[in-house]
Amino acid sequence: MKIERDAPVGVFDSGVGGLTVAREIMRNLPSEKIVYFGDTARVPYGSKSRETIIRYSRQIIRFLQEQEVKAIVVACNTASAFALDAVRHELDIPIIGVIEPGARIAAQETRNKRVGVIGTEGTVGSGIHAEYLKKLDPEIKVIGKPCPLFVPLVEEGWLHDPVTVEVATRYLRELKEKEIDTLILGCTHYPLLRSTIGQVMGEGVRLVNPAYETALELGRLLKEQDLLSTGKQQEEFPYRFYVSDLADKFKEFANSILPYDVEMTQKIDIEKY
Amino acid sequence: MKIERDAPVGVFDSGVGGLTVAREIMRNLPSEKIVYFGDTARVPYGSKSRETIIRYSRQIIRFLQEQEVKAIVVACNTASAFALDAVRHELDIPIIGVIEPGARIAAQETRNKRVGVIGTEGTVGSGIHAEYLKKLDPEIKVIGKPCPLFVPLVEEGWLHDPVTVEVATRYLRELKEKEIDTLILGCTHYPLLRSTIGQVMGEGVRLVNPAYETALELGRLLKEQDLLSTGKQQEEFPYRFYVSDLADKFKEFANSILPYDVEMTQKIDIEKY
Repeated sequence: MKIERDAPVGVFDSGVGGLTVAREIMRNLPSEKIVYFGDTARVPYGSKSRETIIRYSRQIIRFLQEQEVKAIVVACNTASAFALDAVRHELDIPIIGVIEPGARIAAQETRNKRVGVIGTEGTVGSGIHAEYLKKLDPEIKVIGKPCPLFVPLVEEGWLHDPVTVEVATRYLRELKEKEIDTLILGCTHYPLLRSTIGQVMGEGVRLVNPAYETALELGRLLKEQDLLSTGKQQEEFPYRFYVSDLADKFKEFANSILPYDVEMTQKIDIEKY
Repeated sequence: MKIERDAPVGVFDSGVGGLTVAREIMRNLPSEKIVYFGDTARVPYGSKSRETIIRYSRQIIRFLQEQEVKAIVVACNTASAFALDAVRHELDIPIIGVIEPGARIAAQETRNKRVGVIGTEGTVGSGIHAEYLKKLDPEIKVIGKPCPLFVPLVEEGWLHDPVTVEVATRYLRELKEKEIDTLILGCTHYPLLRSTIGQVMGEGVRLVNPAYETALELGRLLKEQDLLSTGKQQEEFPYRFYVSDLADKFKEFANSILPYDVEMTQKIDIEKY
């Protein structure tokens, strides 16, 4: 099968969080078309089991393949941690997650070899960042901390709120005490809390945004495989959005964070895939 | 079909919250056996659409009927608000939700006819408490307020925390200003925040716990239909627990709130029903 270079890139997440990854792809690879799927009927993934997340990811990948995407970005840390290895070998198109690009840049950036990782219980509990980081540099010490209240705080819109500062102060205390110099924002919602997290951690700590690193990695991969879009096939809707529930609410959130006016979102029945 | 009076009662919720209802049934109707189902793979329900919640509820009811329950308690406010009317007529066993019993006692208790309702976005947005309350007394004014951070705060275990007090103070400000004298805890997690909510609202406000009222209502209904358990059929496990994901985590939470040692929880594939 010949992969069509002007086909869209498929991006998926458990809900709205992956839009921070879509946003970086739009900014850094403006010729690429995107089909985004947010699994809003089954969000969140962070507290669910590996087995469940693999089943959900397989259904979404079947849907994206039906949309004839040329590559897939797993824009969800939990799905990247639990499902990427399981599904990679089932596909004949490239697939990347958000864990590896974030880990790679963190390994390059750290000076004292103490790297913090924050994310959902699923992602942090999986230990997958530590696994990648230690492959890159066995001397790196990884300190993980689940921050389960961050996602609901972002979804409530309390991005710069005293409550959020207090919650962040409490969650991040241990990471400060252990003197990390690099912190991976290991959940796609967290870049929206970047300034609060930065304020709590202080200037000495470099924050790694895997969304940005993943967009760059996607660009390198497409170039390598001769799959970068020619930009010649213009379409009325270069970015298409699909969700498994409540399309209107998704659209509202998407419009608040994307540099692009989301006009159409469509609800589909993902359990049929 | 003859309904067996010593059969168990089926109780379901989107996750662990409905355990507060199961707990009241255990306390108030100690002869009744319970089959509990928590839809932990698809939790939360509060931010999902009516159509999705009805589909989920139908699947769970099919599972409970397979367990030969004699009655069903919808121990989830969102599912009670969205699905109860749709499924009631499809069943030949009694089914009750948590909305009506809470609304009835609130209508009896209020003196100034100003009743507050707190819950998920789905429950509060449905306006169903107001609908019931106005049927009981058209003069009652209902003030609803969604409190989306309460459930994650409970699940984090921050029941008496300064952060929770601050969040509650902010959420409940409007209800205080509008001088309600009765407040319905319209989400099954909220009774676990009862003391914090009571502290913020002050002594003049009566808090209604629908979990308790629902257990009493279940007792009346079973008695009326001659379905109260004889208590003669002893079983090794009078309370059985099923979940759609991560049975161990559920067991831990259940053991922290139930007056009973939860030894067995079983994971089932609810999407097959």
